[in-house]
Amino acid sequence: MKLTVLGCYAATPRTFTNPTSQVLELNNELFLIDCGEGTQVELRRNKIKFSKLKHIFISHLHGDHFYGLVGLISTFTLLNREKELHVHGPKGIKEIVTLQLKFSKSWTGYPLYFHELSSREPEMILHNKKVTVETIPLKHRIYANGFLIREKPGARKLLINEVEKYDINVAYYRGIKKGKDAVLDDGTVIPNHKLTADPEPPESYAFCSDTAYNPKMLDQIKGVTGLYHESTFLEEHAYLAAPTGHSTAREAAAIARDASVSKLVLGHYSTRYDSILPFKQEAGEIFPNVDLADDGKIIEFS
Amino acid sequence: MKLTVLGCYAATPRTFTNPTSQVLELNNELFLIDCGEGTQVELRRNKIKFSKLKHIFISHLHGDHFYGLVGLISTFTLLNREKELHVHGPKGIKEIVTLQLKFSKSWTGYPLYFHELSSREPEMILHNKKVTVETIPLKHRIYANGFLIREKPGARKLLINEVEKYDINVAYYRGIKKGKDAVLDDGTVIPNHKLTADPEPPESYAFCSDTAYNPKMLDQIKGVTGLYHESTFLEEHAYLAAPTGHSTAREAAAIARDASVSKLVLGHYSTRYDSILPFKQEAGEIFPNVDLADDGKIIEFS
Repeated sequence: MKLTVLGCYAATPRTFTNPTSQVLELNNELFLIDCGEGTQVELRRNKIKFSKLKHIFISHLHGDHFYGLVGLISTFTLLNREKELHVHGPKGIKEIVTLQLKFSKSWTGYPLYFHELSSREPEMILHNKKVTVETIPLKHRIYANGFLIREKPGARKLLINEVEKYDINVAYYRGIKKGKDAVLDDGTVIPNHKLTADPEPPESYAFCSDTAYNPKMLDQIKGVTGLYHESTFLEEHAYLAAPTGHSTAREAAAIARDASVSKLVLGHYSTRYDSILPFKQEAGEIFPNVDLADDGKIIEFS
Repeated sequence: MKLTVLGCYAATPRTFTNPTSQVLELNNELFLIDCGEGTQVELRRNKIKFSKLKHIFISHLHGDHFYGLVGLISTFTLLNREKELHVHGPKGIKEIVTLQLKFSKSWTGYPLYFHELSSREPEMILHNKKVTVETIPLKHRIYANGFLIREKPGARKLLINEVEKYDINVAYYRGIKKGKDAVLDDGTVIPNHKLTADPEPPESYAFCSDTAYNPKMLDQIKGVTGLYHESTFLEEHAYLAAPTGHSTAREAAAIARDASVSKLVLGHYSTRYDSILPFKQEAGEIFPNVDLADDGKIIEFS
């Protein structure tokens, strides 16, 4: 599991900081999460292949999280994309994009599907062979969702020395990896646990931005491998956080601690701060494994 | 008169090229023409003061000419702009911007006025003390206008030695600069031409992008100081120009020659070309005074 941060600063794109967008690679699939202005250029700069993007998740309809979407969709058309594209985001995203395509008389040359969200409860929004994606309801000024992307459990690992010892036919390997016991020609049953080892534990990633401190999400994100939680403010500006629907670094760390996640990644820093290092320090007092998102940074989780 | 080119490449923003946007400074006023994705960052990079922008002109509703507009408008709000902003562009621009502001529940904190265009004939769309702005109907795949920005003629220049020789009271200077004759105390009339010299000839700028070769504009842009004319293609790709509503460098030069402009600036280059130098060469064979727009370049006209 690998996270490429394209942009992780709040509010407005500047010369050296980009608004929110990130690419999660999980189980060889790429997922684009949020798409602030300039995302298409950051995708190029970070050498992410446009054709590998099939699903885009938009957390909410503040400009710093989606103003780059219509441009990316248009560029895909100019580049003669043929593969389908799925956009998951709040109700309204379809009207916003299609209105602009209508006026430009530039409909996409590829199938474009919108999956509009309006539920206030977690929903399963994608379920394929490799991953599942659920919404995480967030607490912001407007309707907003985070996204919980989980790798599906892999097959059990075949202990090749053991299966060969029992002279088991290759045709049964697939079933054994799925957890079946083996039955030998003489009727002896070899229990699965003697032939296989546990698979790598599936990895999971929770993206939570923008949101005020919201312990309601704890059960849902319990034990995830990676949690990206916004920290727009430091505790010294806590009085700004709740009213604007944002969190402090300390609050993000409390969520990470209480959900027993493996690693916390902070981001969505207010541009009022000259340095982002104090965010790590503040969160580190509450939760040990903290990483700071930054534009262009690649974060590994295992 | 000074042109700052923020972006001048066709189609889609890339790592090192920006879509169309430029700032014309004329008579101490700044005008933003077109606003492709990333324009707000290019404005910062080129140190253009946001607060000095009062009028934005959008040529047409293809994404590479306006996808950066809503972001710029939102950023002005975040920066607590108070001054009014006027957006002049094709019918539809208001709905596109306001729909996005509605979903983000982020109305502007400053007065935002839309002046929607739909005429197929030239229109006077701005007329203040310093300049006039007219639309230039263009020939493109969708409704498109160029813009003709003209400085108003300045006051006549007072020949200070002459007025002092006749001992004319300072109170009359203003009238003399406006062209009035002076009447001395003894009734003698001193004709204005003895007291003043012609003012600097007013400068003018025509922006014509995107458009196929369109000699209909010649009368309107006759003798302008600066003509920015798109040249998406070189003559070798002329077969692509007309069907897509674009021009070649040679066609742009023919317009410059036939309109007797002072200087031609080329831009809106297709990203298929590795170098833009052949555009200058091709146009130069038809019209001598050619400059190449390029991102971040400042072009002076006098």
